[in-house]
Amino acid sequence: GYLEKDAIRGNDTFVTFDEIMKQAVQNEVDFVLLGGDLFHDNKPSRKTMHCCMEVMRKYCMGDRPIVFEILSDQAVNFSHSKFPWVNYLDSNLNISIPVFSVHGNHDDPTGADGLCAIDLLSCAGLINHFGRSRSVEKLEISPVLLKKGNTRIALYGIGSIPDERLYRMFINNQVTMLRPREDEDGWFNLFVIHQNRSKHGATNYIPEQFLDDFLDLVVWGHEHECKIAPVRNEQQLFYVTQPGSSVITSLSPGEAVKKHIGLLRVKGKKMNLQKIPLQTVRQFFIQDVTLSEHPDLFSPEQPNVMLKVMAFCQEKVEEMLEEAERQRLGNSLTPEKPLIRLRVDYSGGFEAFNTMRFSQKFVDQVANPKEILHFIRHREAKDNIKGKSHTSLRVEDLVKEYFQKAEKNVQLSLLTEQGMGKAVQEFVDKEEKDAIEELIKYQLEKTQRFLRERRVEATEEKIDEEVKGRAFKEDLRLKGSMQKMKLYNCTLDLNEK
Amino acid sequence: GYLEKDAIRGNDTFVTFDEIMKQAVQNEVDFVLLGGDLFHDNKPSRKTMHCCMEVMRKYCMGDRPIVFEILSDQAVNFSHSKFPWVNYLDSNLNISIPVFSVHGNHDDPTGADGLCAIDLLSCAGLINHFGRSRSVEKLEISPVLLKKGNTRIALYGIGSIPDERLYRMFINNQVTMLRPREDEDGWFNLFVIHQNRSKHGATNYIPEQFLDDFLDLVVWGHEHECKIAPVRNEQQLFYVTQPGSSVITSLSPGEAVKKHIGLLRVKGKKMNLQKIPLQTVRQFFIQDVTLSEHPDLFSPEQPNVMLKVMAFCQEKVEEMLEEAERQRLGNSLTPEKPLIRLRVDYSGGFEAFNTMRFSQKFVDQVANPKEILHFIRHREAKDNIKGKSHTSLRVEDLVKEYFQKAEKNVQLSLLTEQGMGKAVQEFVDKEEKDAIEELIKYQLEKTQRFLRERRVEATEEKIDEEVKGRAFKEDLRLKGSMQKMKLYNCTLDLNEK
Repeated sequence: GYLEKDAIRGNDTFVTFDEIMKQAVQNEVDFVLLGGDLFHDNKPSRKTMHCCMEVMRKYCMGDRPIVFEILSDQAVNFSHSKFPWVNYLDSNLNISIPVFSVHGNHDDPTGADGLCAIDLLSCAGLINHFGRSRSVEKLEISPVLLKKGNTRIALYGIGSIPDERLYRMFINNQVTMLRPREDEDGWFNLFVIHQNRSKHGATNYIPEQFLDDFLDLVVWGHEHECKIAPVRNEQQLFYVTQPGSSVITSLSPGEAVKKHIGLLRVKGKKMNLQKIPLQTVRQFFIQDVTLSEHPDLFSPEQPNVMLKVMAFCQEKVEEMLEEAERQRLGNSLTPEKPLIRLRVDYSGGFEAFNTMRFSQKFVDQVANPKEILHFIRHREAKDNIKGKSHTSLRVEDLVKEYFQKAEKNVQLSLLTEQGMGKAVQEFVDKEEKDAIEELIKYQLEKTQRFLRERRVEATEEKIDEEVKGRAFKEDLRLKGSMQKMKLYNCTLDLNEK
Repeated sequence: GYLEKDAIRGNDTFVTFDEIMKQAVQNEVDFVLLGGDLFHDNKPSRKTMHCCMEVMRKYCMGDRPIVFEILSDQAVNFSHSKFPWVNYLDSNLNISIPVFSVHGNHDDPTGADGLCAIDLLSCAGLINHFGRSRSVEKLEISPVLLKKGNTRIALYGIGSIPDERLYRMFINNQVTMLRPREDEDGWFNLFVIHQNRSKHGATNYIPEQFLDDFLDLVVWGHEHECKIAPVRNEQQLFYVTQPGSSVITSLSPGEAVKKHIGLLRVKGKKMNLQKIPLQTVRQFFIQDVTLSEHPDLFSPEQPNVMLKVMAFCQEKVEEMLEEAERQRLGNSLTPEKPLIRLRVDYSGGFEAFNTMRFSQKFVDQVANPKEILHFIRHREAKDNIKGKSHTSLRVEDLVKEYFQKAEKNVQLSLLTEQGMGKAVQEFVDKEEKDAIEELIKYQLEKTQRFLRERRVEATEEKIDEEVKGRAFKEDLRLKGSMQKMKLYNCTLDLNEK
C-alpha cells in the first residue's frame, strides 16, 4: 500500500505483490516466506487490505496438494492466534500455498489488543503469523518444524522489535533459540529477522554476531536494498540473504539495485537460492553530478550559468530516461515511467534553481516529476554517501521540546513528557487513536490508587499538594498541561473516585 | 463494535454476535440473512474486524452440507465482488452456513474504490454481500434465486442509500425489481431493505407503499426497535418484519423492547417466523417521572426539595435494578449490570441536581452510571415521545455557518461551501481521510482546465480575475479561504500547469 494514493505509482505495490505470488505458483513452491512489512502502514487502508486479501485468496488457495508436514506444536508456534494451527491443515480451507510471515516494524502489533494487520489475514486463514513474543524482556523462540522427505527445516523467526530492546536482550543473554530434541544436528536452521542490519547508532541495529552459529541461513528483512545472494558470515558460519523491498520507497542508491525474490531449495543441509528478477517493479535510476567538476562547461561567475547548469542537468536526466527505455525494451510488465533522481552537488558558489519548472519538462516521462532534482552541498553530500539522506524529526522530540519551552504555569502534573511523547508518537505513527487516552487513564488510575492509599481527603488543594509531592518524589519531571496541548478531550475526574 | 472501548459494555456486541451465530448453528439454518450495519463504524477498528471474522470463521465454516441451490446468475448478484459467486460454492472454502447481507448506513461503501467494511469479509469468503447498485439514479434489482426442494425464494435487497435519494428514485419510477422469468408466481419473494421506516421529514424515509406488492416478506433493517413479529401491510398485502438491533445504542424507549432474532421457515409460499429471544443482550430499563405529579411528596418551594427529589429518583432507580435482577435470575448469559435510564420531567419550578453525585451510588450496579438521569422540561418531554431524543448537528452545517460568518477577505475562491461541507462530513463521519483532498484536486483540475481553455496567461492577477469571473458566472458562491480552515495542507499550484 505504499503511496497508494499516487496517481502514477498508486498500484505499484499491488501489481508486484501479484507478480511475486504468481511466481510462487509457477515455481510450485512449498510455501512462501515473508520477512515482515507486508504492509506499509500499521493501519492499512481498506483498499490495501482488500487488494492484499484478493491476491492471497487468488494464489494461495486451490487444489495443489501440500506435501510437507509440520512436526512442532502448532499451538506453541501460533499461540497468539485464535486459530492456532497452520492454515493448510485447517479442514475448512483449501490452501495450496501456505504463507509464513513475521511482522515488520511497519505492521507491528499495537494497542491494548496487541493485534497487527497480518493478524486479520491470519484470522481469515490466509497467512501464518509466527515469530511473535509476548514478553518484552526475554525471547524463547520455538521453531516451526517442517519436514518433506528426508529434509527437515527448523524455521525460527522474530517479528520486529525496537532495535535497542532486542540489542539489550541479546546482550543480557535473554534470547534463546530452542533446538529440536531429536537429532539436533539433522535440521536445516532457517531464521527470519526484521531489524536494522546496518548500524544506526551504537545499539540501534542487530550485529550478525549476536545470532546463534547453529543457524544455516538468515533471511534478513527490513533493509530495502536487494542483497538476496546469500553471503557467508565467516565468523558465525551461516549465510545471510537480504531480499530487500519489492517497491522503491526512497530515492536513494540502495533502492536502485535491481529487485529480486529468491527461490530457495533445501535438501538435507544443502541449499540453493535462485534469484528471480521482478519484472513489474518500476525502474529507478539515480546519478550524482558535482557542478564544480565541470569548469569547462560553466563557472559560478558566468552571467547565464543557471541556464547552462539547467541544460546540463536536463541532459543527464535524458540520458537516464534513454537508458531506462533501452532496458525496458520488450518487457511489457515494467511500468513505462521510471523513477529518476539526479543529485546535484552545487557547492563552490553555484546556486540552486527552481525545480518546479525543470520538472515540468519531464511530467509525462517520469513517475516522480516533482522530485527529480535534489540539490546538495558538499557537506550534505558526504552525509548522503553514508546512507543518511534525511534526518526525520520524531514527534516524540517535538513533544519534549514543547514541554521544555512551556511556561511553568502550564506544566503537566500527572504525565511525564516521556510517556506523553511515546503516546503521541503511537498516535501519529500507527494511527493508534487511543494511545493518548490510554496513557492518561493509566496515569490517572495510578494517581488515584496513590491518593487512596495515602487517604488524601478529596479537596482540590490537598490533591494538588499530594500530586506535586509524589511527583517530585518519583522524579516525574512535572511539565505542561493537557489542556494546553489540545490533543485530546479528557476529563481528569480526580474527585470522582 | 459499538462502544468497544467502554470498560463495561465493550464486548457486548461481540458476545451477542457470537450468540446469534451459535443460534444459527444450533437451529441448523440454511443461511443467515443480515439487514445491514453489521458494523457500527464505517472503518471498524482492527479489533472489531478481527472479532467479527473470528466469529464467522468459527460458526460459518464446517462440514455440514448445504442443501439449497442458487439458480440466478451469481456474476450479476455479486458483480461488485472480486469473487463474484456465493461463498459456499467456492471449492476452496468449506462453508457450512452462508451469510447474506446488504450494507447498512453505518458500513456503506465510501471512497474512490467504493469498498465497504463487509467487502473485506466478502473478500475473505466469509460473507455474501448483495443488494449493491452502482447507479445513483436508477435501481434494477436482480434477486438471488434460491431453491431447496420445491421451495424457491427470490431474495431481493437494497443496501443503504440516503433516504431522500431512494425516495426520489421510487417517486420517479426508477426502482425496478426484476422477476424470475420462469413461473413468476411460484416464488417466495423476500426483500431486505435498510432505510428509515418511521417518518423523519417528508422524504426522509421509505413508505411501505412504495414497495412492490408481489413481495411476500420485507425484512426491514436500520430501525433499532425489535418488531420482529411480521406485520401485514393491508394495502400491499405483504408482511414486514423489523428485527431491530442486537445491541442498545441509545437510551430511548424503542431500545428497551426485548431483543430477538427470527428463525424464518419458508415452504412454498407459506412462512413462519419464530422469535428467539437473545440471552446475552444487556438489560435496559427506562422509566419516566414527572416531578409535578407528586405534590404529596415535594413541591418546588420546600427548603430541602432537592434532597427529596433525589431520594425519589434513587428509589425509582432501585426499583428498576430490582426488576432487572429478578428478570435476570437464572440466566447466566445476561450481563450483570443493566442499563438504567430515568427521565425526570422537572418542569413546574423544580431544579435539576448534580447527576455526578447521584451516579456515584450506582457505579457498581449499573452499566451506564454517568447517564442514568436525564432531566427534561415539559416541551422537550413531548419531543421525546415522538422519538426525537436529540438533534444532531451535522458538520456540514457547521462548515456552512462558518463560511457564512467568515469575513469577506477570507472567502473561498474555488470551493463551494456545499462541496466542502460534504467532504468534511465524509472526513468526519466515515474517517474518509482523503475526501477533502479529493474534492480540492477535483476543483483544481476543473479550474485549470477552464483556464487552459480560455488560454489565460499565467500571472497571478489574471488568474484571480478569471477565477472570480468564472465563479460568478457559475454561481459558485465564493466563500472563505482554505488556509483559514486549517483542515488540510494543500498547495493550490495554479501556476503549475
